[in-house]
Amino acid sequence: MTILSIIVSGLLLAVAVLAATVDGLVAQAGAPPNIVIIFADDLGYGDLGVFGAPSIRTPRLDAMAAEGQKWTSFYVQPVCSPSRAALLTGRLPVRNGMFGTPGGTAPKVFRDNAAAGLPPEEFTIAEVLKSRGYATGMVGKWHLGQRTEFLPMRQGFDSWLGLPFSHDMRMTVPRDKGLQTDAYYQPKPEYWDVPLMRNNDVIERPVDHRTLTKRYTEEAVRFITANRARPFFLYLAHSLPHIPLARSDAFVGHSAGGMYGDAVEEIDWSTGQVIDALRKTGIDRRTLVVFTSDNGPWLPFRTHGGSSGPLKEGKGTTWEGGVRAPAIFWWPGTVRPGAVTDMGSGLDLIVTAAALAGATLPRDRVLDGVDLSAVLRGSGPGPRDKLFYYWDSELRAIRKGNYKAHFITSGAYGEGEPRTVHTPPLLFDLAQDPGERFNVAAAHPDIVADLTREAEAHRLTVVPTEPLFDRLIALTPGQRMR
Amino acid sequence: MTILSIIVSGLLLAVAVLAATVDGLVAQAGAPPNIVIIFADDLGYGDLGVFGAPSIRTPRLDAMAAEGQKWTSFYVQPVCSPSRAALLTGRLPVRNGMFGTPGGTAPKVFRDNAAAGLPPEEFTIAEVLKSRGYATGMVGKWHLGQRTEFLPMRQGFDSWLGLPFSHDMRMTVPRDKGLQTDAYYQPKPEYWDVPLMRNNDVIERPVDHRTLTKRYTEEAVRFITANRARPFFLYLAHSLPHIPLARSDAFVGHSAGGMYGDAVEEIDWSTGQVIDALRKTGIDRRTLVVFTSDNGPWLPFRTHGGSSGPLKEGKGTTWEGGVRAPAIFWWPGTVRPGAVTDMGSGLDLIVTAAALAGATLPRDRVLDGVDLSAVLRGSGPGPRDKLFYYWDSELRAIRKGNYKAHFITSGAYGEGEPRTVHTPPLLFDLAQDPGERFNVAAAHPDIVADLTREAEAHRLTVVPTEPLFDRLIALTPGQRMR
Repeated sequence: MTILSIIVSGLLLAVAVLAATVDGLVAQAGAPPNIVIIFADDLGYGDLGVFGAPSIRTPRLDAMAAEGQKWTSFYVQPVCSPSRAALLTGRLPVRNGMFGTPGGTAPKVFRDNAAAGLPPEEFTIAEVLKSRGYATGMVGKWHLGQRTEFLPMRQGFDSWLGLPFSHDMRMTVPRDKGLQTDAYYQPKPEYWDVPLMRNNDVIERPVDHRTLTKRYTEEAVRFITANRARPFFLYLAHSLPHIPLARSDAFVGHSAGGMYGDAVEEIDWSTGQVIDALRKTGIDRRTLVVFTSDNGPWLPFRTHGGSSGPLKEGKGTTWEGGVRAPAIFWWPGTVRPGAVTDMGSGLDLIVTAAALAGATLPRDRVLDGVDLSAVLRGSGPGPRDKLFYYWDSELRAIRKGNYKAHFITSGAYGEGEPRTVHTPPLLFDLAQDPGERFNVAAAHPDIVADLTREAEAHRLTVVPTEPLFDRLIALTPGQRMR
Repeated sequence: MTILSIIVSGLLLAVAVLAATVDGLVAQAGAPPNIVIIFADDLGYGDLGVFGAPSIRTPRLDAMAAEGQKWTSFYVQPVCSPSRAALLTGRLPVRNGMFGTPGGTAPKVFRDNAAAGLPPEEFTIAEVLKSRGYATGMVGKWHLGQRTEFLPMRQGFDSWLGLPFSHDMRMTVPRDKGLQTDAYYQPKPEYWDVPLMRNNDVIERPVDHRTLTKRYTEEAVRFITANRARPFFLYLAHSLPHIPLARSDAFVGHSAGGMYGDAVEEIDWSTGQVIDALRKTGIDRRTLVVFTSDNGPWLPFRTHGGSSGPLKEGKGTTWEGGVRAPAIFWWPGTVRPGAVTDMGSGLDLIVTAAALAGATLPRDRVLDGVDLSAVLRGSGPGPRDKLFYYWDSELRAIRKGNYKAHFITSGAYGEGEPRTVHTPPLLFDLAQDPGERFNVAAAHPDIVADLTREAEAHRLTVVPTEPLFDRLIALTPGQRMR
């Protein structure tokens, strides 16, 4: 071999390596994946087949979990509006006003007559992905402010079909029996004066609750089909299985689990429609689908609320049942199939989405999320080592590794929420005791001290903003939302 | 066409039809499937990934459930020996002496010094299948009488490797702290004087608990490989995750769920070895594998006991957590994949096995099982419409359809079991309320009356035999079992 030929060979090799590297970069940077987030409402940890539901059958979600990743330590916020804001912004609710006046009787979510909303200067997943050329569609429940200036169209979404708030709000019949009112248990659409909106316009009022899951699904499939040639972000936020329970005719009596089971099984069908649409359009291998719930089951509604399975308590509490949600990540060929026990949070989705899309996140504010994509690909451990449990603007518990310390606890949302301060804190080993049955504080004073320090350190970094949930517009029963 | 040719054609057709029919019969009767029953010990309803365990990962059992049928209403008896007898004979424990003297302090299972055992005249699945030419092997825990005349070799098994009773029996250290004794929580093999037997001989004593799952698995794989050319029945009855918890070195720290999780994850590995052996020998498509547990989790052992997930209470009770077990049926190409909510019972396995094998069941005794094969094939509904819940020889509850009436309840086994009589009975809708939280007796007097009548009618058909659990041999600590 001559020296010349060695040089030429070397050059050829270098060119080949360079070409392969550029190809790789283009493949990675040039084709960001579609991202679909499906967010159920008040679905409990134990309400899907693959999460142990005894009576409810969810074959499509079970298959999605078998093909994808089932996350068993995925966390959200304990109640609706804060959880949605955290999901979209990656920021703890205490940082962006998603709470009421401390100690008062202020609402814990945005009411139907809210004067405020998620501040427009908050940066959402839709805005992050839009910066990378994504089409951004939202279908379903917003619940981050009902006035036009706070609706999805002002937060990065190109289109929206859905409800501005929960479908149990703006009730037109007397609430004379509290949570156990007949209206909730034998619901009729006319008991609630709830608008269905397309973009900034009301298109139906009152909306027939029974049609919601079906119409949301049809809209989601239309959006996927229309945007199949470009990267898109779809946020499908179901109104169900939140009370009042409703389902389309095809799902009446579908489940062994009663009306609640019917509603969940229709969401299972809906998820199957989304998966089918991705397959049909041939984009399933470049689409990440995330399925989770906004908070735990609303237990005071008994058989009309869901189940937190093996976990303690439900919605509105910082016990595990309030905040640990069933979660499934699906992306054929990229997400490594299996069950993972790594900690994840709804806060992490914006950071993960930005990493997958190659998008830049704002640097002028604190983000509380981390990038989960290494876990999704099976290439590394979960980066989340701590979790802060808030109720309203109050830090009530902290998890670090497998240990969780409760400083303050309360019971179920909607039942008066008596508040108990724990000194010393309660301590649970969530890995061995996910049901929070055995307080091990006495056996581990060092861990109690460490978690207490961590909580204090965190508190120092948080400057609560102004509470936004108690800014209300006075409405008479006859008034309509504008 | 002449008359002759018509006759000849007719005859040929008749012969062809006859031949096809005979072929069909031969195919059906001539190639009975292998049957493998894997029986975990004290594994709770919520302890497998696919049944909602948050910390324990069971990828092989999850895959088995995804490929096969996951039964969410499968029942066993509330404690060990009665459950094993019911599984093997298809008869309620009250019919064959599997209980102690009523009202006394008699044992609730066979002790290590039991003088009696499952009566040899009882007819087991092994005997049923042996009559059809099956090789019959048992691996694991027997617990139906420790004297030679009551061991597996006298109940239709060709071979056996395993323990005659529970590995927490014949303790050699003082039980001075009751259930919370250090011996259970930091177990060492020498704390128990437990024999490992092959057929009728003790081959190791004391056995090292840590090796049990591994050795059982190796023996099971050997049995499958050796018998791959003929139909076989394998009964693999694990000793774990019953306390004292133990696992082989490879599984120490394997699970996020502590020692209990390690033990379950080793059983998951073991199940994978069985499935792999069936695939490797090419007989997976003619083998039914059933995985279930003998009873609910032993909750007083705290993190060393399992979890009943969303169900109430555990082992030793007739609440759902005591008797509803995780159950998976797997037979590629025959069992229709999916989750089924039909009721099934360990009592049904002998009847189902006989139907699949074309074997005859004894007609001189009451069998309490039904044939589940239509559900397995997806060709029909579950034939079981009622379930009777016994503790010892006492009928405590009944389920008919989705409703369950409790006439008598008690708390966890091992904690004194205070007994409460309910007049009127408690009534739960298990489909909508699997956690037995909402007593609906007052709303459904008709259903209460019907279930009470059903219970009375059942009681009239049952003549309890003599209790066998309190016949004991006096042993000194130095004595060895013969």
